[in-house]
Amino acid sequence: MLPWSADLAGRMDRQVITSELLRGNPLGDPFERPLHVYLPPGYDDEPGRRYPAVYVIQGYTGHLAMWDNRTPFRQPFPETADALFAGGTPPVILVLVDAWTAYGGSQFVDSPGTGRYHSYLCDEVVPYVDARYRTLAAREHRAIAGKSSGGFGAMITPMLRPDLFGALATHAGDALYEYCYVPEFPQVVRTLRQWGGDVGKWWDDFRQRPAMTRPGDDVTLCALGVAACFSADQDGTPRLPFDTVTGELIPPLWQRWLDLDPVRMVPEHAEAVRSLRAVWIDAGTRDEFHLDVGAEAFHRAIRAAGLPEQAIHFELFDAGHGGIDYRYPLAVDWLARRIQA
Amino acid sequence: MLPWSADLAGRMDRQVITSELLRGNPLGDPFERPLHVYLPPGYDDEPGRRYPAVYVIQGYTGHLAMWDNRTPFRQPFPETADALFAGGTPPVILVLVDAWTAYGGSQFVDSPGTGRYHSYLCDEVVPYVDARYRTLAAREHRAIAGKSSGGFGAMITPMLRPDLFGALATHAGDALYEYCYVPEFPQVVRTLRQWGGDVGKWWDDFRQRPAMTRPGDDVTLCALGVAACFSADQDGTPRLPFDTVTGELIPPLWQRWLDLDPVRMVPEHAEAVRSLRAVWIDAGTRDEFHLDVGAEAFHRAIRAAGLPEQAIHFELFDAGHGGIDYRYPLAVDWLARRIQA
Amino acid sequence: MLPWSADLAGRMDRQVITSELLRGNPLGDPFERPLHVYLPPGYDDEPGRRYPAVYVIQGYTGHLAMWDNRTPFRQPFPETADALFAGGTPPVILVLVDAWTAYGGSQFVDSPGTGRYHSYLCDEVVPYVDARYRTLAAREHRAIAGKSSGGFGAMITPMLRPDLFGALATHAGDALYEYCYVPEFPQVVRTLRQWGGDVGKWWDDFRQRPAMTRPGDDVTLCALGVAACFSADQDGTPRLPFDTVTGELIPPLWQRWLDLDPVRMVPEHAEAVRSLRAVWIDAGTRDEFHLDVGAEAFHRAIRAAGLPEQAIHFELFDAGHGGIDYRYPLAVDWLARRIQA
Amino acid sequence: MLPWSADLAGRMDRQVITSELLRGNPLGDPFERPLHVYLPPGYDDEPGRRYPAVYVIQGYTGHLAMWDNRTPFRQPFPETADALFAGGTPPVILVLVDAWTAYGGSQFVDSPGTGRYHSYLCDEVVPYVDARYRTLAAREHRAIAGKSSGGFGAMITPMLRPDLFGALATHAGDALYEYCYVPEFPQVVRTLRQWGGDVGKWWDDFRQRPAMTRPGDDVTLCALGVAACFSADQDGTPRLPFDTVTGELIPPLWQRWLDLDPVRMVPEHAEAVRSLRAVWIDAGTRDEFHLDVGAEAFHRAIRAAGLPEQAIHFELFDAGHGGIDYRYPLAVDWLARRIQA
Repeated sequence: MLPWSADLAGRMDRQVITSELLRGNPLGDPFERPLHVYLPPGYDDEPGRRYPAVYVIQGYTGHLAMWDNRTPFRQPFPETADALFAGGTPPVILVLVDAWTAYGGSQFVDSPGTGRYHSYLCDEVVPYVDARYRTLAAREHRAIAGKSSGGFGAMITPMLRPDLFGALATHAGDALYEYCYVPEFPQVVRTLRQWGGDVGKWWDDFRQRPAMTRPGDDVTLCALGVAACFSADQDGTPRLPFDTVTGELIPPLWQRWLDLDPVRMVPEHAEAVRSLRAVWIDAGTRDEFHLDVGAEAFHRAIRAAGLPEQAIHFELFDAGHGGIDYRYPLAVDWLARRIQA
Repeated sequence: MLPWSADLAGRMDRQVITSELLRGNPLGDPFERPLHVYLPPGYDDEPGRRYPAVYVIQGYTGHLAMWDNRTPFRQPFPETADALFAGGTPPVILVLVDAWTAYGGSQFVDSPGTGRYHSYLCDEVVPYVDARYRTLAAREHRAIAGKSSGGFGAMITPMLRPDLFGALATHAGDALYEYCYVPEFPQVVRTLRQWGGDVGKWWDDFRQRPAMTRPGDDVTLCALGVAACFSADQDGTPRLPFDTVTGELIPPLWQRWLDLDPVRMVPEHAEAVRSLRAVWIDAGTRDEFHLDVGAEAFHRAIRAAGLPEQAIHFELFDAGHGGIDYRYPLAVDWLARRIQA
Repeated sequence: MLPWSADLAGRMDRQVITSELLRGNPLGDPFERPLHVYLPPGYDDEPGRRYPAVYVIQGYTGHLAMWDNRTPFRQPFPETADALFAGGTPPVILVLVDAWTAYGGSQFVDSPGTGRYHSYLCDEVVPYVDARYRTLAAREHRAIAGKSSGGFGAMITPMLRPDLFGALATHAGDALYEYCYVPEFPQVVRTLRQWGGDVGKWWDDFRQRPAMTRPGDDVTLCALGVAACFSADQDGTPRLPFDTVTGELIPPLWQRWLDLDPVRMVPEHAEAVRSLRAVWIDAGTRDEFHLDVGAEAFHRAIRAAGLPEQAIHFELFDAGHGGIDYRYPLAVDWLARRIQA
Repeated sequence: MLPWSADLAGRMDRQVITSELLRGNPLGDPFERPLHVYLPPGYDDEPGRRYPAVYVIQGYTGHLAMWDNRTPFRQPFPETADALFAGGTPPVILVLVDAWTAYGGSQFVDSPGTGRYHSYLCDEVVPYVDARYRTLAAREHRAIAGKSSGGFGAMITPMLRPDLFGALATHAGDALYEYCYVPEFPQVVRTLRQWGGDVGKWWDDFRQRPAMTRPGDDVTLCALGVAACFSADQDGTPRLPFDTVTGELIPPLWQRWLDLDPVRMVPEHAEAVRSLRAVWIDAGTRDEFHLDVGAEAFHRAIRAAGLPEQAIHFELFDAGHGGIDYRYPLAVDWLARRIQA
């Protein structure tokens, strides 16, 4: 393995999609978005063949160009995925979707604070791909996968749009918000002390200097960004779900977050859940956001909703939250075998 | 300062109190308890003088003999308190109360899981002291102070028994349970994986080996012990307020915890709160249990209940949760000046 | 087990020894020192019987009164040791020696910076005990044991005085100074930046405020205190073995430290080492000072010096540096069986 | 700032250099290496103008393609450097050099364990650049800069080849090996316990599984890789400078490391040091490898060698070792102003 580059057996088609739904989004983020479509080996040789598709979304602060990032002793996911097919994995199309915002992410939901990223994904990206590539354009052959906030998106999108997605993979996906988000709130309170509890002042400062150079930058960005996705006012103002001085949760705002907790969403979407063909759930046993516990809870929830164990792969492994990209191809292989025609 | 021992200007009267209320307690803990009463300098010389009293309670896993523990470069609290009076602090009697249980603490509440420690403190210890020492036996002259779980006890006891206590000091007292307790629950889940989610099996193991030698011992003991205090069944069985496999909170049990969150208790005890003469609140800005944030919330809550700022000392200081015993005499001095006759 | 106190099957004889060698010590520390002698069960009943003795010394910042400290779920060492004899351990006398200084310790060496603690131990405490108690007053029946700096003292004292000590136990004893001390030096440099690199100014500040409340207090105290023991000038001034601004080691001073590294001392004291009857070495595999690695090195060194494996107990166990007092009675039992008459 | 890409005002010329010196290197690493040459704005418009050059080398495990990596809220160095010139920085050519090896790095030295990377840099890359680009091909106009191991390379290369480099910038460059390397050695010992102390077995395992997924991977890779650079046998076998079971330093091997400590190299290269036009030294005050202390020592060493303070920029800033890429353009700007014609 050379560290500088690698040739793919398949090919990456680098597109730009113009999103009408993101046009005029409240943050002024671009409505033309990169969209990378990986076509597996053989795609160009068998012009009559159609393929399942796995949509891959990113974690918080991820944006599309980061899929090209190279690290010291590992290959990027596009290359490890590409290598799967030489090893016998049934070929699939991989759709790499960008949902970045000025706050670092969209959580793949529609929000007055960020934009209509859920609809963009479901109603623009999916049709775009189906129109231009030889997909098997049906829920049975369409999966969605991601890590962290991407895992969250992968859990909720099939619940909200079972007509589109019939399978999913979540790696350390956000779940059980009392354990992944709540422990960060008091740290945000501490960070905001120097700003008099005003997260807007922090944000103004954050944008004017090198990012992530002050203590609390990470947790404050996350809280503000997710608030923009989950609990923004109608005019787009993000509202933190806790008092920034005392830390007390603000029930109506916090409830809006809980309404988007995948574990809590399952019962009301039980029919959609039951209809899933394949669900991959994994997380590291030392995950700093306790997403292994969230994974356990999501697993039990979908079982309770009636999804049989044979449709599920559940696995905890020895790791923290970072550096687990080597898990992604494992899930792609598993999904690929279950969403074939 | 010599590290081995010190002479007191006052004297420590080491008593044993026989508690009828603790007799037959569910854990089989002793009902004869040590009770140390510190009498300030001059007490024996002025037989007609009466004194205010500060009841001092301990944090979780604290027991009375630990007040005698000596550390390398600091004096124990009884000695630093004793030194106050030479420096001009108005004399008070200090009552060191033991509320240890087999789980490490009682949280100073009445519980079928541990025993009637709240009643023991209020209805046995207080009368015992007033009967044997020349106290000013009225709420105006009686304060309660403690750190961590002891700070919790100091916050709630005057709310529950305003007839007895008219002042308090809380150092990093338990408050805002979503921040001090909830972040530990997923760690308990992880610890219990090797016990199949059965905290009883962990407890059996814990008691048979050197304590605190396995990862998760601390958080599991705390969760179990506080459950014994806050959410035990009527038969005494402690019930953890979360599913031990999925981590999901169990609302009726968790509500029993929240009902004992000092911040949440204030509104329903607003009249008692308003009647307080003196409230000292402090915490370290790096407190590992985020009790600085809890302190902010308790502060705002008692202000909202109508207690004027001049009755309050609020202070955050640069420290974590441990090693803050040097704060105790500061509060004793402040209280002593406010509960004098 | 009750947490407040315990009755001993044997008894603790609390003495004060007047040390001529410590009189006039450079720090003005007391020359009258507490000395606690534990007499095993049966001692008073068999007036003709003589006993082996284990001298027990403490880690850095330990002083004699701390043996009485009680902790939540464990018994103090005097009680766990006392319990041994009921379980069949051959009886020994335990001699608890105090070697505290104003810097927190003496390292059990003679130094112009602290005093003649090595000589005090060997030439005053040992004769004092042999004169007053029915010891088996010979090296074959005299062991020395300790943890951390006490383990260091237990390693070096028999090398320096094989006429007195024929056995030892070291729990996480200081060894391989490049790993236990050197990593702290740059932290001291950082701490001293605010004092212009002047450790004397730090020390003046440290003594005037609550100890251990500022970052770097612990490492700076340790470096200064050990420098007082190992690399003081003849006039008593402690000299740090590194430049306090650049961190560079100062070879002649650092060499004085290395000359007192137990691992490095073994070759020149090989004959003394070979003569030992019993050597217990243990440490936790997560020891923050890497003393498990030091233990490996000391083990190999004494083997290379010719001590046979059957005279050695070597064990690494899962723990850090703290909370390992439960190991002490294991070593006392092992030693007791090997230094009997 | 858009996160996906950016246009440069200048341009990046992506070359591949064929290295005769690396041909047949012991690790079988490529001898054709990527070489990226950044040409500042105006370069193509002023065909008669010549430019100074700053050679930029990377930290351990860095390879050339990683300069293209994008992160959430920051621009990659090529873009932040490009932005300098619009802001008035005198234009320079930036030469991005690759010195990756199978162990993750070369330390920019010639070694039988890795290859002749020092000579490759000095005798192949520099002439290659001077032959193809309009450089000011003299030491006065040639600087070298880097972070971490790249900072190390930036410190030593001008000492070894003052004929080539007349200026340097080191960001948290490796220095004072007792503080940056030694603290990791006991961690390597611990890691190798499961491999019986055989680093070769660890290496075989490391290469067969996802990298950096086992505890100790990072420190063991670093120790092995640097040993390959600093203390390999003539046949290329890397030799760790410590006993892998006892941790004891092996003096002749360790001396080979110390001989390459920049702080220790300065005195013997004093004349070269004195001749430097500009030296930028910085590091974070919380650097996990204590390279702030190493920076202080290097600073003092070059001052002692006779370099005047006005030729030096020395700065410690609030940061750890990671995430300090925003410092690079600061140094490029400072160097650019000092190496102009």
